[in-house]
Amino acid sequence: MAEWKNLDQLKAYQEMAESKKTVDLKEAMKGEQGAVRVREYAAPMAAGLSFCYAARLVDDELLEKLGELAAEAQLTDKFEELYNGAVINTGEKRLVLHQLTRGQLGKAVIADGTDKRAFYREQQEKIAAFAKKVHDGELLNENGEKYTTAVQIGIGGSDLGPRAMYLALENWARKHGHFKMEARFISNVDPDDAAAVLNATDLAHTIFILVSKSGTTLETLTNESFVKDALKNAGLDASKHMIAVTSETSPLAKSADYLAAFFMDDYIGGRYSSTSAVGGAVLSLAFGPDIFARFLEGAAAEDKLATEKDIRKNAAMLDALIGMYERNILHYPCTAVLPYSQALSRFPAHLQQLDMESNGKSVNRFGEPVSYPTGPVIFGEPGTNGQHSFYQLLHQGTDIIPLQFIGFRNSQIETDVVIQGSTSQQKLCANVAAQIMAFACGKEDENRNKNFSGNRPSSIIVGDSLTPEALGALLSHFENKVMFQGFLWNLNSFDQEGVQLGKVLAKKVLAHETDGALKAYSDLLNI
Amino acid sequence: MAEWKNLDQLKAYQEMAESKKTVDLKEAMKGEQGAVRVREYAAPMAAGLSFCYAARLVDDELLEKLGELAAEAQLTDKFEELYNGAVINTGEKRLVLHQLTRGQLGKAVIADGTDKRAFYREQQEKIAAFAKKVHDGELLNENGEKYTTAVQIGIGGSDLGPRAMYLALENWARKHGHFKMEARFISNVDPDDAAAVLNATDLAHTIFILVSKSGTTLETLTNESFVKDALKNAGLDASKHMIAVTSETSPLAKSADYLAAFFMDDYIGGRYSSTSAVGGAVLSLAFGPDIFARFLEGAAAEDKLATEKDIRKNAAMLDALIGMYERNILHYPCTAVLPYSQALSRFPAHLQQLDMESNGKSVNRFGEPVSYPTGPVIFGEPGTNGQHSFYQLLHQGTDIIPLQFIGFRNSQIETDVVIQGSTSQQKLCANVAAQIMAFACGKEDENRNKNFSGNRPSSIIVGDSLTPEALGALLSHFENKVMFQGFLWNLNSFDQEGVQLGKVLAKKVLAHETDGALKAYSDLLNI
Repeated sequence: MAEWKNLDQLKAYQEMAESKKTVDLKEAMKGEQGAVRVREYAAPMAAGLSFCYAARLVDDELLEKLGELAAEAQLTDKFEELYNGAVINTGEKRLVLHQLTRGQLGKAVIADGTDKRAFYREQQEKIAAFAKKVHDGELLNENGEKYTTAVQIGIGGSDLGPRAMYLALENWARKHGHFKMEARFISNVDPDDAAAVLNATDLAHTIFILVSKSGTTLETLTNESFVKDALKNAGLDASKHMIAVTSETSPLAKSADYLAAFFMDDYIGGRYSSTSAVGGAVLSLAFGPDIFARFLEGAAAEDKLATEKDIRKNAAMLDALIGMYERNILHYPCTAVLPYSQALSRFPAHLQQLDMESNGKSVNRFGEPVSYPTGPVIFGEPGTNGQHSFYQLLHQGTDIIPLQFIGFRNSQIETDVVIQGSTSQQKLCANVAAQIMAFACGKEDENRNKNFSGNRPSSIIVGDSLTPEALGALLSHFENKVMFQGFLWNLNSFDQEGVQLGKVLAKKVLAHETDGALKAYSDLLNI
Repeated sequence: MAEWKNLDQLKAYQEMAESKKTVDLKEAMKGEQGAVRVREYAAPMAAGLSFCYAARLVDDELLEKLGELAAEAQLTDKFEELYNGAVINTGEKRLVLHQLTRGQLGKAVIADGTDKRAFYREQQEKIAAFAKKVHDGELLNENGEKYTTAVQIGIGGSDLGPRAMYLALENWARKHGHFKMEARFISNVDPDDAAAVLNATDLAHTIFILVSKSGTTLETLTNESFVKDALKNAGLDASKHMIAVTSETSPLAKSADYLAAFFMDDYIGGRYSSTSAVGGAVLSLAFGPDIFARFLEGAAAEDKLATEKDIRKNAAMLDALIGMYERNILHYPCTAVLPYSQALSRFPAHLQQLDMESNGKSVNRFGEPVSYPTGPVIFGEPGTNGQHSFYQLLHQGTDIIPLQFIGFRNSQIETDVVIQGSTSQQKLCANVAAQIMAFACGKEDENRNKNFSGNRPSSIIVGDSLTPEALGALLSHFENKVMFQGFLWNLNSFDQEGVQLGKVLAKKVLAHETDGALKAYSDLLNI
């Protein structure tokens, strides 16, 4: 059994904090030694991706120390316990099995009398069969016509991950003949969200996917009613237009209101659910089950790499360790995620939830306050758009923000144009290469307003193109990075008690059981 | 003439920094005194909006001190110099005239031999006449058919602001009979961005709006070529499908390639250009010139309030002062923007550019390094989505992040549904009220994992509904907040030298004039 200790109880960390060693990136990235760093400071990833950390603030000595810390913190042992079915989510007393939705790293995990891998696979197969029937026209609407659109109704993890994954593969699927159905998403309880989506949707040919693990998420149930009203007003039979993704014990599971129900369980956290039925239903309908399976394969292969004990071969663990160093030793408050790929436009928003909801905590897994910073703020937009937006602060602001770039050698759609001797894709890639070096090395200028101090760290994940496998590997990388950082900080990364108080107070407002300032705000908002 | 001093040279600031006074928000927001705060700590805004700062970390004493600071820093005097045409953008030696695109606060501003207010109005009128011709079918495509779609080609300020404003009003316009043409946006140099938009667009009925002040923005010119290729491949005459928004001196200004050209000038920064021709063309085409004029009226009315010397009547200045206090005295690194309105889904992304590109700087307006933190990281997503995503960290993380909520009493589309006794809109409003109080007051729990420490500050801008006037006022509020903070930090908020180095290096990569690490990255990315 691994020992769970706070970060500041670990000897390797204490030594690092003591020595406060820093690397002069400007110097390290200069000349030929910089080129060597770019080639050597790269960890292999699945699907042909590579995690290049040459421009992070590390050197061989520090990497060695981080390796010691990884061993002392028993990171891979903890991961092993997790995938073998230990109760890692101590707060809610639950197993943490999202990796099992896409593979089997260790022993079979039996819980609630079920082989969980078989259970997840069974759901995936049920979804595949359902999607095939829809695509083949075996399952038709009340007028005997094919469904053309899927609309996911869900919020948080039931929205951000699946939406980001759909957008990531939409153009790829269209280009490669895998595009089956358009997908849209309703999430916010703001009635304008549902109304706008419904106004733009051909209801008669739409399957709505209601996603709520508990079957009690108020936003989602509200939006379900919204949709049912719209279907009824259009003279349609709601039960011919809805499926559910939920847990077997939820009120939705056995309802006759749905064409079909697919299951997840309590061992899959919302923000980790893109590879479960939560992502599976919409992605299989949109692109076909084979593409969803390829996405899972990429994630599974990357999960396997996360079991490596050598930190230089374990990109997720290495990323986690360096990120901890930036956060706890160098005191950098934020991390930016900057994909040079328009298809990943909502990937940063997904990682924002994944990371901030997992590790934005002040007590350790035993409920004791920790005395060091935990999860940073995560934000980001695609490059090159970000360059023309907030990069000014990243280059010349008073805080240093570590950067996580993502780039691909080739575009998805493969339509391009040559202007001034280069394609758009080449310009895109040239920009990310240039940015990494501008941040790392800066540029001295007598005019201090044009001076770039450099020493601003970044890493890049590089791949050939954004395929389903590459997307799966990317997703797994960040999930596992967050997991390893949770281990380092000794947090329970798999609960989210911080969202409860707002829910309780919102109910009071709606029941008009308020006084004082809460009543005053309610009055201000005319509730 | 105002005196430009660094923040830490100001007596009121030194006293604040010395006393490190903090307000116990939990205590202040308790009981009836909390209700009084909500009613009294509210500054009026234009278009019926109100800026309620009851849950920010201030009290009467601190507000008085902030008022002293505002006077000592000569904030309104500096604003007066700005709108009367002083060279406030010292780095580029330019006037700063975006407020003039929507009104006339002070004297007439004559520059380059022109009355600038008349110039901006003339452009607005030219756009209005052009849009009217398009809407009325006086201007038709090569087949004698009406145009139905407008596609903006621009990046940074030519994209984020206009896109956010379009999305903010799209549903409102559809609901109220003002929707004239759909708008889309191409920004990224990633070829998949343009390809995806073009694949989904009916080219024959589209007007493309090429937006580049200099006429030399590489991403935008590349995307123009991309679009021209597509038009040619579709057998269409590009000159019948393109207009330009640029400066009079740009190579685009007099080209026969465009149906029309509309002008801005060097006195309008990209990120401040939504109320100039940059936003005017696309918004007037999409919703009609009258709606665009209403948007400008809201901004102008809010600008007028920003001239108030009493900080309690000047929401933008007050927001700036409290934000400075949070950043410089309390050392909070980020600010989150959280609109409880799906229509404002991209408003945080616009504010991210506006704020971070304006004030993410380390040298003052004289080019001397400053010794205090300047602009914070800005991020955000609409509530209630954010609640199910990153609010965990906001409630229980180890850093405190000040929050800027925005909420409206009514939805835009006005379609709603009653579930469990309340409408969606009521639930939306109940949530934002509940969140403010949860952040401010927290909740003690013996289980430390369920403990909320509270004292997490927020403000809210509240309005009846998101109309064109309200949107203009909102935009102006944040523009002026950023301006006042720039004055406090003694920055030039109107240049962006931090974006230059990346451009220079990217050109080197494309010309294959690299060595060392930059060449290694170029090889890694196959450029």
